Amino acid sequence: MKYQAYAADSAEGKLSIRDWELGELGPNEVDIDVDYCGLCHSDVSMLKNHWEMTGYPIVPGHEVVGRVSAKGESVAHLEVGQRVGLGWLAGSCGTCQPCLGGHQNLCADSKGTIVGRAGGFAESVRAEALWAIPLPDGVDSEAAGPLFCGGITVFNPIVQNNISPMDRVAVVGIGGLGHMALQFLNKWGCEVTAFSTSPDKEDQARELGAHHFVNSRDDSQLDKVAGSYDLILSTVNVELDWEKYVAALRPQGTLHLVGAAPKVESSVFALIQGQKSISASPVGSPGITARMVEFSARHHIAPKVEVMPMSEINEAFDKLEKDKPAHRIVLKADFN
Amino acid sequence: MKYQAYAADSAEGKLSIRDWELGELGPNEVDIDVDYCGLCHSDVSMLKNHWEMTGYPIVPGHEVVGRVSAKGESVAHLEVGQRVGLGWLAGSCGTCQPCLGGHQNLCADSKGTIVGRAGGFAESVRAEALWAIPLPDGVDSEAAGPLFCGGITVFNPIVQNNISPMDRVAVVGIGGLGHMALQFLNKWGCEVTAFSTSPDKEDQARELGAHHFVNSRDDSQLDKVAGSYDLILSTVNVELDWEKYVAALRPQGTLHLVGAAPKVESSVFALIQGQKSISASPVGSPGITARMVEFSARHHIAPKVEVMPMSEINEAFDKLEKDKPAHRIVLKADFN
Repeated sequence: MKYQAYAADSAEGKLSIRDWELGELGPNEVDIDVDYCGLCHSDVSMLKNHWEMTGYPIVPGHEVVGRVSAKGESVAHLEVGQRVGLGWLAGSCGTCQPCLGGHQNLCADSKGTIVGRAGGFAESVRAEALWAIPLPDGVDSEAAGPLFCGGITVFNPIVQNNISPMDRVAVVGIGGLGHMALQFLNKWGCEVTAFSTSPDKEDQARELGAHHFVNSRDDSQLDKVAGSYDLILSTVNVELDWEKYVAALRPQGTLHLVGAAPKVESSVFALIQGQKSISASPVGSPGITARMVEFSARHHIAPKVEVMPMSEINEAFDKLEKDKPAHRIVLKADFN
Repeated sequence: MKYQAYAADSAEGKLSIRDWELGELGPNEVDIDVDYCGLCHSDVSMLKNHWEMTGYPIVPGHEVVGRVSAKGESVAHLEVGQRVGLGWLAGSCGTCQPCLGGHQNLCADSKGTIVGRAGGFAESVRAEALWAIPLPDGVDSEAAGPLFCGGITVFNPIVQNNISPMDRVAVVGIGGLGHMALQFLNKWGCEVTAFSTSPDKEDQARELGAHHFVNSRDDSQLDKVAGSYDLILSTVNVELDWEKYVAALRPQGTLHLVGAAPKVESSVFALIQGQKSISASPVGSPGITARMVEFSARHHIAPKVEVMPMSEINEAFDKLEKDKPAHRIVLKADFN
């Protein structure tokens, strides 16, 4: 299997197009012809080895939309030519307790799409077939990629925390993750509040589905919402004034973190009093991801994207870091 | 309503017997003739105003077993003479969301049995009838008192966290709360591990129901149990090496705190990776408390108690503070 891919040779290096080669396709694997691949902050972190687990050369890209181009002999549930998505994970062991229980995303031996593997900024990408999620009609290829990383990251906590349409939920941060969370929660039937440090994002937040907007730089606004939320979903990777957020929970409420702030802390008494909890999660399982895609198709939910040609990949990385756009950047494959 | 009670006039004062008087019984209230009342660390904290919410004179005591001596006109479900228990809470508003949802223990207007009210170290104690929990036959009056505070505090998290008999659970601390948790969890069907800083408590822990024992002062033992538990129930009120305890959880595991350590903290990444959570809770609702009592009767679960006459109440307080016994001290009413 030979194809072209964008790779970098070091944490400081730029991405450049080159020939890439993979060995034989395994019986449970598929190759996917890449049509689009979203650009995520995790691609930047991996490219620059922020998490000290990058192998060079690295081919980043883990928000893939494409078509199955080849499938291993054991793959019965996908057809060649079928449209699929691929996210942060491309493999799992299949036999551990989390895998057996349908929580393959929590497998200790899971394989990241760009961790020791070649990702989706390429003509083709390989994955275990389980992790290639079928795309139903009605889901737009151009915009769907970010669902498979940022999207499932904020959708999964709604499922895992048994959020009911009767619940009040707040989303902290209206960026790449938060703008999808607002859409999901609005269609889930919840009363949705957007928290942002940028008051100029209020209109956008309301368009995306927020019923209320809280300027989280304003302490008096935070104090006013004490005891309000069943779930607070934080998508930001900075430490918050945790006490105020725990106080903003209703009894039995949960502060759920998907943004990797360094640390979270709380007074124990504040948690005890209202039977409150602090939780966190990574991306979701293939089963929940597939249902998220169906939910998105049914409710016309899509990430807001800006499409650039994949040949402008270095400009796209620069733009993500410099502009911190609220939408997602998606690269369209334009190989010769 | 006149009766005798043990009261103190200041944080430094001793308890002394004196006449006490309450107004008319409300329509939803009962008076309970006290037979036994357990002594809890919270009585010490309240007596000494550690939580800055004590009103003097204070009558402590909130692990009551007695018999209904009078009932208000609206109380239909209890009979005069019926044996009941009373714990930390003696009232709730009845109309807020938590109350309506069966979580009266989370009512923001709940009334503590010894917070602005006179407690159970007395001939009689008054409570809203909802909080007087019927005692089925087979539950021993002498030992049952601590079920209504320490007991429900460790039983409730088993219910609230949906703990399954297939789960592995660790209990941190084998004192007044922990020794009841071990019994509950063993009979719940779980694989139970006791964590203690006192290796000499191993035999006792195993007798109470622990299948395994971990010396939590020994870092190598803590490292060995990484990834082991669905629930870790901490009954101690000191800060632990939280990272090690979060690491000891299985994927989707919960570190649940009922001991009021000042603060809890964790790296967010450690929580994200395994979809883990940190939670906490106070005592339980009347409904869960009643079911705990039934469960205890069915499985012959009882707090380990040392009974002293109530007239030795000051000696009992000294003993609790000095000896920190693993069992509970219960005072038997011996009024003239």
